[in-house]
Amino acid sequence: MSTVQPFLILHVEDDPAHAVIVRRNLAGTQGGTRLNLVKDGRAALDYLFRQGVFCDPESSPRPDLIVMDLRLPKVDGLEVLRQVKQDAGLRPIPVVVLTTSGAERDIRDAYAMGVTSYLVKPTSLQEFTQMMDAFRRYWLELNHLPSRPSPL
Amino acid sequence: MSTVQPFLILHVEDDPAHAVIVRRNLAGTQGGTRLNLVKDGRAALDYLFRQGVFCDPESSPRPDLIVMDLRLPKVDGLEVLRQVKQDAGLRPIPVVVLTTSGAERDIRDAYAMGVTSYLVKPTSLQEFTQMMDAFRRYWLELNHLPSRPSPL
Repeated sequence: MSTVQPFLILHVEDDPAHAVIVRRNLAGTQGGTRLNLVKDGRAALDYLFRQGVFCDPESSPRPDLIVMDLRLPKVDGLEVLRQVKQDAGLRPIPVVVLTTSGAERDIRDAYAMGVTSYLVKPTSLQEFTQMMDAFRRYWLELNHLPSRPSPL
Repeated sequence: MSTVQPFLILHVEDDPAHAVIVRRNLAGTQGGTRLNLVKDGRAALDYLFRQGVFCDPESSPRPDLIVMDLRLPKVDGLEVLRQVKQDAGLRPIPVVVLTTSGAERDIRDAYAMGVTSYLVKPTSLQEFTQMMDAFRRYWLELNHLPSRPSPL
């Protein structure tokens, strides 16, 4: 028996206010986009590699897209990105960095490690919302991703 | 002496009508985006690896972004993608596929080979234009790319 699964975004963000802005603009769009939020880099790796509390693929399914801050507690976002892109199974999942850092070094390192796209959070709430609108339009409405290989 | 270089897109497209739609919507935006058009997969590889008529880096500079059809004469788009993503120097350049094929196999193969994003050309001109508007907003206005390592 197969059920239609909503598009799933793994959101890695330690700032609660930013998490709310992203959720408000992305969750529930396009016939039920779902966001799973984790708040540090260790939890992101545990989720993606199904360790510890994330070992159940039913409650922690493979995401279609990853949206990730860079400055994260426990494990840095660049290290999460490196491990995702070194894993053949996880590598095809697009990773969009969403960070306050517009530092050239961070941008260069992220692309060298295989980031899909790099967005800098605007300081104005209105501009942040407009950015997430454009994000939703592009990644949730226009871009095509492969179907998930299995239900879990 | 340094000069400001416009954002450069390498556009790989054999359909002249589609090339015009993309150019009309992307070229000249954001302070001078430049499009260099090549019409088959062989020319795309020659351009990127600076072979033959593309050996001069001044007239054939490294692109910031590649927009590429999949069904291309001479060398298929997936093969171009494979060679770009196997080259350490070219790998960080985002490659957006823009094709009429929405076949699951093409989508899966493109992501397995490291495509950045996969767009399916709408049959309606109006929707194609709207898609290119969203493309421009996302990739030319919001996304950050590394500065080019050298002027050439």
